[in-house]
Amino acid sequence: MTNNNLLDLTAMFADIQEHWQPVIINHGDFGFRLVKFAGDFDWHSHQSSDKIILVVAGEMGICFDDKDDVIIKAGQMYVLNKGIRHKPYAIKECSIVLIEKAGLGD
Amino acid sequence: MTNNNLLDLTAMFADIQEHWQPVIINHGDFGFRLVKFAGDFDWHSHQSSDKIILVVAGEMGICFDDKDDVIIKAGQMYVLNKGIRHKPYAIKECSIVLIEKAGLGD
Repeated sequence: MTNNNLLDLTAMFADIQEHWQPVIINHGDFGFRLVKFAGDFDWHSHQSSDKIILVVAGEMGICFDDKDDVIIKAGQMYVLNKGIRHKPYAIKECSIVLIEKAGLGD
Repeated sequence: MTNNNLLDLTAMFADIQEHWQPVIINHGDFGFRLVKFAGDFDWHSHQSSDKIILVVAGEMGICFDDKDDVIIKAGQMYVLNKGIRHKPYAIKECSIVLIEKAGLGD
């Protein structure tokens, strides 16, 4: 991690131009993925680690098989539990940080 | 966790009046502490888990024994490694989220 363990999210997202191309940073106990996106992603699930989703800019939703969509706005965090099938989508172009336990990304 | 795994940080910090009185939320693989503070905290270290510090509002510094202070501003994250003696302090009144591996808080 650059700059002595510090992630300047605003500056890092300013450098990300492509959608769905995460910048992956592993540090100590945690893994971080910074990603910008618009539109829909595919249905999938994560088997190894719960994931924290921090929405830094924009607004996103998540569809689930068996419950209402969750809407996550800038300044909100959501904990996505492992093993749950879901489909993320952007309502407004999103900049998000995914945080997971180190070494367990999937 | 209230509201289906969602943490609305702005709303939650609006409800926190006291300094140094963390709101503790444990969910799945992670533990969260939301805390407002001003002034200095004591020197201490964390033995069990690295900690992510997300500064939501304000500006803080951390003193270390053997290196320059780190300054963390709103919109920045810092990964504090376990076992390192440090002293946090507020430069401007701070609202921060501490994130750690579940069940390992110290």
